Amino acid sequence: MTLPFKPLKVDKLTPQKAQGLVVVITGNGKGKTTSAMGMVLRASGHGLRTCIIQFMKGDLYTGEWDGVKLLGNLAELHATGMGFCGIQGNPYSHAEHRVNAQAAIELARAKMTGGDFDIVILDEINNALQLKLVDLDQVLDLIRGKPERMHLVLTGRNARPEVLELADTASEVCEVKHAYQKDIEPQPGIDY
Amino acid sequence: MTLPFKPLKVDKLTPQKAQGLVVVITGNGKGKTTSAMGMVLRASGHGLRTCIIQFMKGDLYTGEWDGVKLLGNLAELHATGMGFCGIQGNPYSHAEHRVNAQAAIELARAKMTGGDFDIVILDEINNALQLKLVDLDQVLDLIRGKPERMHLVLTGRNARPEVLELADTASEVCEVKHAYQKDIEPQPGIDY
Repeated sequence: MTLPFKPLKVDKLTPQKAQGLVVVITGNGKGKTTSAMGMVLRASGHGLRTCIIQFMKGDLYTGEWDGVKLLGNLAELHATGMGFCGIQGNPYSHAEHRVNAQAAIELARAKMTGGDFDIVILDEINNALQLKLVDLDQVLDLIRGKPERMHLVLTGRNARPEVLELADTASEVCEVKHAYQKDIEPQPGIDY
Repeated sequence: MTLPFKPLKVDKLTPQKAQGLVVVITGNGKGKTTSAMGMVLRASGHGLRTCIIQFMKGDLYTGEWDGVKLLGNLAELHATGMGFCGIQGNPYSHAEHRVNAQAAIELARAKMTGGDFDIVILDEINNALQLKLVDLDQVLDLIRGKPERMHLVLTGRNARPEVLELADTASEVCEVKHAYQKDIEPQPGIDY
Protein backbone atom coordinates (compact mmCIF):
# COMPACT_ATOMS: atom_id res chain seq x y z
CA MET A 1 0.00 0.00 0.00
CA THR A 2 1.22 3.49 -0.80
CA LEU A 3 -0.02 5.84 1.88
CA PRO A 4 -0.84 9.45 1.02
CA PHE A 5 1.48 10.72 3.74
CA LYS A 6 4.48 9.17 5.37
CA PRO A 7 6.06 10.28 8.64
CA LEU A 8 9.10 12.46 8.02
CA LYS A 9 11.08 10.03 10.14
CA VAL A 10 10.49 6.96 12.22
CA ASP A 11 11.85 7.33 15.74
CA LYS A 12 13.13 4.45 17.79
CA LEU A 13 13.19 4.79 21.56
CA THR A 14 16.16 3.55 23.52
CA PRO A 15 15.86 3.89 27.28
CA GLN A 16 18.81 5.59 28.94
CA LYS A 17 18.36 3.10 31.72
CA ALA A 18 17.38 -0.44 30.82
CA GLN A 19 15.30 -1.74 33.68
CA GLY A 20 13.53 -5.04 34.14
CA LEU A 21 9.88 -4.53 35.00
CA VAL A 22 7.40 -6.51 37.03
CA VAL A 23 4.14 -6.59 35.07
CA VAL A 24 0.90 -8.02 36.47
CA ILE A 25 -2.13 -8.66 34.26
CA THR A 26 -5.22 -9.63 36.23
CA GLY A 27 -9.02 -9.34 36.06
CA ASN A 28 -11.93 -11.42 34.82
CA GLY A 29 -11.90 -10.37 31.16
CA LYS A 30 -10.45 -11.86 27.98
CA GLY A 31 -6.90 -10.71 27.32
CA LYS A 32 -4.53 -11.66 30.12
CA THR A 33 -2.62 -14.63 28.73
CA THR A 34 -3.28 -13.09 25.32
CA SER A 35 -1.57 -9.89 26.42
CA ALA A 36 1.40 -11.87 27.72
CA MET A 37 1.66 -13.62 24.35
CA GLY A 38 1.64 -10.22 22.66
CA MET A 39 4.65 -9.26 24.76
CA VAL A 40 6.37 -12.42 23.47
CA LEU A 41 5.76 -11.41 19.86
CA ARG A 42 6.76 -7.79 20.48
CA ALA A 43 9.91 -8.78 22.37
CA SER A 44 10.86 -11.19 19.58
CA GLY A 45 10.84 -8.27 17.19
CA HIS A 46 13.52 -6.68 19.36
CA GLY A 47 15.48 -9.94 19.38
CA LEU A 48 14.70 -10.47 23.07
CA ARG A 49 14.26 -13.97 24.45
CA THR A 50 11.18 -15.03 26.42
CA CYS A 51 10.39 -18.06 28.57
CA ILE A 52 6.73 -18.76 29.27
CA ILE A 53 5.78 -21.07 32.12
CA GLN A 54 2.09 -21.88 32.22
CA PHE A 55 0.66 -22.95 35.55
CA MET A 56 -2.34 -25.31 35.50
CA LYS A 57 -2.58 -25.24 31.71
CA GLY A 58 -1.49 -28.41 29.97
CA ASP A 59 -4.54 -30.58 29.35
CA LEU A 60 -6.20 -28.45 26.68
CA TYR A 61 -4.47 -27.41 23.48
CA THR A 62 -4.05 -23.72 22.87
CA GLY A 63 -2.58 -22.07 19.78
CA GLU A 64 0.31 -20.36 21.54
CA TRP A 65 1.93 -23.76 22.11
CA ASP A 66 2.67 -23.91 18.40
CA GLY A 67 2.76 -20.15 17.86
CA VAL A 68 5.89 -19.72 19.96
CA LYS A 69 7.63 -22.43 17.94
CA LEU A 70 7.50 -20.08 14.96
CA LEU A 71 9.76 -17.72 16.90
CA GLY A 72 12.63 -20.22 16.88
CA ASN A 73 15.08 -19.84 19.74
CA LEU A 74 13.56 -16.53 20.84
CA ALA A 75 10.83 -18.17 22.88
CA GLU A 76 10.10 -21.37 24.77
CA LEU A 77 6.92 -22.45 26.50
CA HIS A 78 6.33 -24.97 29.27
CA ALA A 79 2.74 -26.00 29.99
CA THR A 80 3.16 -27.53 33.42
CA GLY A 81 -0.38 -28.16 34.54
CA MET A 82 -3.23 -30.61 34.30
CA GLY A 83 -6.17 -28.26 33.96
CA PHE A 84 -8.05 -26.10 36.37
CA CYS A 85 -7.91 -27.66 39.80
CA GLY A 86 -11.29 -28.23 41.36
CA ILE A 87 -13.49 -27.64 38.33
CA GLN A 88 -16.01 -30.27 37.39
CA GLY A 89 -14.55 -33.10 35.36
CA ASN A 90 -10.94 -32.47 36.30
CA PRO A 91 -9.73 -35.88 37.52
CA TYR A 92 -6.66 -34.86 39.50
CA SER A 93 -6.38 -34.26 43.23
CA HIS A 94 -5.32 -30.98 44.75
CA ALA A 95 -2.12 -32.71 45.92
CA GLU A 96 -1.28 -33.79 42.35
CA HIS A 97 -1.93 -30.31 40.99
CA ARG A 98 0.22 -28.87 43.75
CA VAL A 99 3.15 -31.14 43.00
CA ASN A 100 3.19 -29.90 39.41
CA ALA A 101 2.80 -26.27 40.42
CA GLN A 102 5.69 -26.65 42.85
CA ALA A 103 7.80 -28.10 40.05
CA ALA A 104 6.82 -25.09 37.93
CA ILE A 105 8.05 -22.74 40.68
CA GLU A 106 11.41 -24.50 40.63
CA LEU A 107 11.48 -24.28 36.84
CA ALA A 108 10.69 -20.56 37.05
CA ARG A 109 13.53 -20.01 39.48
CA ALA A 110 15.95 -21.88 37.20
CA LYS A 111 14.87 -19.98 34.08
CA MET A 112 14.96 -16.62 35.87
CA THR A 113 18.46 -17.12 37.23
CA GLY A 114 19.93 -18.98 34.25
CA GLY A 115 20.64 -15.79 32.33
CA ASP A 116 19.16 -17.03 29.05
CA PHE A 117 16.00 -14.93 29.06
CA ASP A 118 15.13 -11.25 28.90
CA ILE A 119 11.53 -11.91 29.88
CA VAL A 120 9.97 -14.66 31.99
CA ILE A 121 6.19 -15.04 31.96
CA LEU A 122 4.42 -16.90 34.76
CA ASP A 123 1.05 -17.48 33.16
CA GLU A 124 -1.90 -18.14 35.48
CA ILE A 125 0.29 -17.97 38.55
CA ASN A 126 -2.27 -15.72 40.25
CA ASN A 127 -4.81 -18.50 39.87
CA ALA A 128 -2.37 -21.10 41.14
CA LEU A 129 -1.84 -18.91 44.19
CA GLN A 130 -5.57 -18.45 44.73
CA LEU A 131 -6.02 -22.24 44.58
CA LYS A 132 -3.15 -22.80 47.05
CA LEU A 133 -1.08 -24.73 44.53
CA VAL A 134 1.74 -22.32 45.29
CA ASP A 135 2.28 -20.14 48.35
CA LEU A 136 2.34 -16.37 48.56
CA ASP A 137 5.89 -16.37 49.92
CA GLN A 138 7.08 -18.40 46.97
CA VAL A 139 5.67 -15.90 44.50
CA LEU A 140 6.96 -12.88 46.41
CA ASP A 141 10.40 -14.51 46.65
CA LEU A 142 10.46 -15.02 42.89
CA ILE A 143 9.55 -11.38 42.29
CA ARG A 144 12.02 -10.03 44.84
CA GLY A 145 14.79 -12.27 43.48
CA LYS A 146 14.26 -11.19 39.87
CA PRO A 147 17.48 -10.26 38.04
CA GLU A 148 17.48 -6.47 37.68
CA ARG A 149 17.41 -6.35 33.88
CA MET A 150 14.94 -9.21 33.39
CA HIS A 151 11.22 -8.51 32.97
CA LEU A 152 8.83 -10.69 34.93
CA VAL A 153 5.18 -10.97 33.84
CA LEU A 154 2.54 -12.56 36.07
CA THR A 155 -0.98 -13.28 34.81
CA GLY A 156 -4.24 -14.69 36.09
CA ARG A 157 -7.36 -13.61 37.92
CA ASN A 158 -7.41 -12.46 41.50
CA ALA A 159 -3.89 -11.10 41.78
CA ARG A 160 -3.05 -10.75 45.45
CA PRO A 161 -2.55 -7.21 46.78
CA GLU A 162 0.94 -8.20 47.91
CA VAL A 163 1.79 -9.15 44.32
CA LEU A 164 0.29 -5.96 42.90
CA GLU A 165 2.29 -3.99 45.46
CA LEU A 166 5.54 -5.26 43.91
CA ALA A 167 4.42 -4.60 40.33
CA ASP A 168 5.77 -1.69 38.29
CA THR A 169 2.93 -1.94 35.80
CA ALA A 170 -0.40 -3.64 36.49
CA SER A 171 -3.60 -3.85 34.48
CA GLU A 172 -6.99 -5.25 35.33
CA VAL A 173 -8.79 -6.70 32.32
CA CYS A 174 -12.51 -6.40 32.96
CA GLU A 175 -15.12 -8.34 31.05
CA VAL A 176 -17.58 -6.02 29.33
CA LYS A 177 -19.19 -8.90 27.45
CA HIS A 178 -18.16 -12.31 26.15
CA ALA A 179 -19.31 -14.45 23.25
CA TYR A 180 -20.12 -17.39 25.57
CA GLN A 181 -22.99 -15.32 26.92
CA LYS A 182 -24.57 -15.71 23.47
CA ASP A 183 -23.77 -19.45 23.51
CA ILE A 184 -21.02 -19.01 20.96
CA GLU A 185 -18.41 -21.75 21.36
CA PRO A 186 -14.73 -20.93 21.94
CA GLN A 187 -13.08 -20.19 18.60
CA PRO A 188 -9.49 -21.14 17.72
CA GLY A 189 -7.12 -18.22 17.36
CA ILE A 190 -9.26 -15.98 19.51
CA ASP A 191 -10.26 -17.96 22.58
CA TYR A 192 -7.55 -20.65 22.56
CA MET B 1 11.71 -30.66 32.17
CA THR B 2 10.09 -33.88 33.37
CA LEU B 3 6.98 -33.04 35.30
CA PRO B 4 5.90 -35.22 38.22
CA PHE B 5 2.45 -35.69 36.69
CA LYS B 6 1.24 -35.46 33.14
CA PRO B 7 -2.36 -35.07 32.02
CA LEU B 8 -3.84 -38.40 30.96
CA LYS B 9 -4.67 -36.81 27.65
CA VAL B 10 -4.50 -33.43 25.99
CA ASP B 11 -7.83 -32.34 24.59
CA LYS B 12 -8.20 -30.12 21.57
CA LEU B 13 -11.40 -28.17 21.14
CA THR B 14 -13.02 -27.90 17.74
CA PRO B 15 -16.14 -25.75 17.59
CA GLN B 16 -19.13 -27.41 16.00
CA LYS B 17 -19.87 -24.06 14.47
CA ALA B 18 -16.95 -21.93 13.33
CA GLN B 19 -17.99 -18.33 13.78
CA GLY B 20 -16.11 -15.12 13.20
CA LEU B 21 -16.17 -12.92 16.27
CA VAL B 22 -16.08 -9.18 16.77
CA VAL B 23 -13.67 -8.48 19.63
CA VAL B 24 -13.18 -5.03 21.16
CA ILE B 25 -10.31 -4.28 23.55
CA THR B 26 -10.58 -0.85 25.12
CA GLY B 27 -9.66 0.98 28.34
CA ASN B 28 -6.80 3.09 29.65
CA GLY B 29 -4.45 0.31 30.79
CA LYS B 30 -1.49 -1.47 29.27
CA GLY B 31 -2.47 -4.50 27.21
CA LYS B 32 -4.76 -3.59 24.32
CA THR B 33 -2.50 -3.68 21.29
CA THR B 34 -0.46 -6.22 23.22
CA SER B 35 -3.53 -8.43 23.56
CA ALA B 36 -4.21 -8.13 19.84
CA MET B 37 -0.63 -9.19 19.13
CA GLY B 38 -1.16 -12.19 21.39
CA MET B 39 -4.10 -13.20 19.22
CA VAL B 40 -1.78 -13.01 16.22
CA LEU B 41 0.71 -15.39 17.85
CA ARG B 42 -2.02 -17.74 19.07
CA ALA B 43 -3.76 -17.77 15.69
CA SER B 44 -0.47 -18.48 13.95
CA GLY B 45 -0.16 -21.62 16.03
CA HIS B 46 -3.42 -22.78 14.50
CA GLY B 47 -2.14 -21.90 11.03
CA LEU B 48 -4.61 -19.00 10.77
CA ARG B 49 -3.66 -15.85 8.87
CA THR B 50 -3.89 -12.38 10.40
CA CYS B 51 -3.72 -8.88 8.93
CA ILE B 52 -2.99 -6.03 11.34
CA ILE B 53 -3.76 -2.47 10.32
CA GLN B 54 -2.46 0.10 12.77
CA PHE B 55 -4.18 3.47 12.77
CA MET B 56 -2.09 6.50 13.80
CA LYS B 57 0.97 4.38 14.62
CA GLY B 58 3.82 4.65 12.16
CA ASP B 59 6.25 7.26 13.42
CA LEU B 60 7.63 5.34 16.39
CA TYR B 61 9.17 1.89 16.10
CA THR B 62 7.53 -0.90 18.03
CA GLY B 63 8.72 -4.49 18.28
CA GLU B 64 5.66 -6.07 16.71
CA TRP B 65 6.66 -4.60 13.35
CA ASP B 66 9.52 -7.09 13.23
CA GLY B 67 7.86 -9.69 15.44
CA VAL B 68 5.17 -10.45 12.88
CA LYS B 69 7.83 -10.96 10.21
CA LEU B 70 8.95 -14.04 12.14
CA LEU B 71 5.55 -15.56 11.43
CA GLY B 72 6.22 -15.65 7.68
CA ASN B 73 3.13 -15.55 5.52
CA LEU B 74 0.80 -16.05 8.50
CA ALA B 75 0.75 -12.37 9.39
CA GLU B 76 1.18 -8.97 7.83
CA LEU B 77 1.20 -5.56 9.46
CA HIS B 78 0.52 -2.10 8.03
CA ALA B 79 1.41 0.90 10.18
CA THR B 80 -0.58 3.59 8.41
CA GLY B 81 -0.24 6.58 10.71
CA MET B 82 2.00 9.45 11.59
CA GLY B 83 1.73 9.46 15.35
CA PHE B 84 -0.94 10.59 17.73
CA CYS B 85 -2.84 13.45 16.21
CA GLY B 86 -2.90 16.56 18.33
CA ILE B 87 -0.28 15.65 20.90
CA GLN B 88 2.55 18.06 21.51
CA GLY B 89 5.35 17.78 18.99
CA ASN B 90 3.35 15.96 16.34
CA PRO B 91 3.98 18.04 13.19
CA TYR B 92 1.06 16.89 11.04
CA SER B 93 -2.29 18.55 10.59
CA HIS B 94 -5.60 16.92 11.43
CA ALA B 95 -6.35 16.86 7.70
CA GLU B 96 -3.15 14.97 6.95
CA HIS B 97 -3.81 12.46 9.71
CA ARG B 98 -7.34 12.03 8.42
CA VAL B 99 -6.22 11.35 4.86
CA ASN B 100 -4.06 8.48 6.09
CA ALA B 101 -6.77 7.12 8.39
CA GLN B 102 -9.20 7.17 5.49
CA ALA B 103 -6.70 5.23 3.37
CA ALA B 104 -6.44 2.75 6.25
CA ILE B 105 -10.21 2.28 6.23
CA GLU B 106 -10.04 1.44 2.52
CA LEU B 107 -7.17 -0.94 3.16
CA ALA B 108 -9.18 -2.59 5.94
CA ARG B 109 -12.13 -3.08 3.63
CA ALA B 110 -9.89 -4.62 0.96
CA LYS B 111 -8.17 -6.98 3.42
CA MET B 112 -11.47 -7.99 5.02
CA THR B 113 -13.15 -8.84 1.75
CA GLY B 114 -10.12 -10.27 -0.07
CA GLY B 115 -10.52 -13.68 1.51
CA ASP B 116 -6.86 -14.04 2.48
CA PHE B 117 -7.24 -13.54 6.23
CA ASP B 118 -8.91 -15.35 9.09
CA ILE B 119 -8.44 -12.41 11.42
CA VAL B 120 -8.22 -8.68 10.74
CA ILE B 121 -7.05 -6.39 13.54
CA LEU B 122 -7.82 -2.67 13.43
CA ASP B 123 -5.37 -1.40 16.01
CA GLU B 124 -6.13 1.98 17.64
CA ILE B 125 -9.22 2.47 15.50
CA ASN B 126 -11.16 3.50 18.61
CA ASN B 127 -8.68 6.34 19.07
CA ALA B 128 -8.89 7.29 15.41
CA LEU B 129 -12.65 7.48 15.80
CA GLN B 130 -12.40 9.56 18.95
CA LEU B 131 -10.09 11.99 17.13
CA LYS B 132 -12.46 12.18 14.14
CA LEU B 133 -9.90 10.72 11.73
CA VAL B 134 -12.56 8.20 10.79
CA ASP B 135 -16.32 8.37 11.17
CA LEU B 136 -18.59 6.22 13.28
CA ASP B 137 -20.56 5.05 10.25
CA GLN B 138 -17.38 3.88 8.56
CA VAL B 139 -16.44 1.73 11.53
CA LEU B 140 -19.95 0.34 11.98
CA ASP B 141 -20.09 -0.45 8.24
CA LEU B 142 -16.83 -2.38 8.46
CA ILE B 143 -18.12 -4.38 11.41
CA ARG B 144 -21.51 -5.07 9.85
CA GLY B 145 -19.89 -6.04 6.54
CA LYS B 146 -17.47 -8.51 8.13
CA PRO B 147 -17.33 -11.90 6.40
CA GLU B 148 -19.13 -14.37 8.66
CA ARG B 149 -16.16 -16.62 9.37
CA MET B 150 -13.58 -13.86 9.75
CA HIS B 151 -12.69 -12.46 13.17
CA LEU B 152 -12.46 -8.70 13.52
CA VAL B 153 -10.54 -7.17 16.42
CA LEU B 154 -10.77 -3.46 17.26
CA THR B 155 -8.51 -1.85 19.84
CA GLY B 156 -7.93 1.55 21.41
CA ARG B 157 -9.19 3.70 24.24
CA ASN B 158 -12.67 5.13 24.41
CA ALA B 159 -14.51 2.54 22.36
CA ARG B 160 -17.85 4.03 21.34
CA PRO B 161 -20.98 2.40 22.81
CA GLU B 162 -22.22 1.73 19.26
CA VAL B 163 -19.03 -0.27 18.59
CA LEU B 164 -19.29 -2.17 21.86
CA GLU B 165 -22.90 -2.95 21.02
CA LEU B 166 -21.78 -4.88 17.93
CA ALA B 167 -19.01 -6.76 19.76
CA ASP B 168 -19.32 -10.42 20.70
CA THR B 169 -16.49 -10.15 23.20
CA ALA B 170 -15.29 -6.92 24.75
CA SER B 171 -12.77 -6.20 27.49
CA GLU B 172 -11.83 -3.01 29.24
CA VAL B 173 -8.19 -2.92 30.28
CA CYS B 174 -7.91 -0.66 33.32
CA GLU B 175 -4.68 0.79 34.56
CA VAL B 176 -3.97 -0.24 38.13
CA LYS B 177 -0.50 1.27 38.02
CA HIS B 178 2.16 1.98 35.41
CA ALA B 179 5.94 2.21 35.52
CA TYR B 180 5.89 5.75 34.10
CA GLN B 181 4.40 6.89 37.39
CA LYS B 182 7.75 5.97 38.95
CA ASP B 183 9.58 7.79 36.14
CA ILE B 184 10.70 4.52 34.58
CA GLU B 185 11.23 4.95 30.83
CA PRO B 186 9.40 2.78 28.30
CA GLN B 187 11.25 -0.51 27.92
CA PRO B 188 11.56 -2.44 24.65
CA GLY B 189 9.66 -5.71 24.51
CA ILE B 190 7.24 -4.61 27.22
CA ASP B 191 6.14 -1.07 26.38
CA TYR B 192 6.95 -0.99 22.66
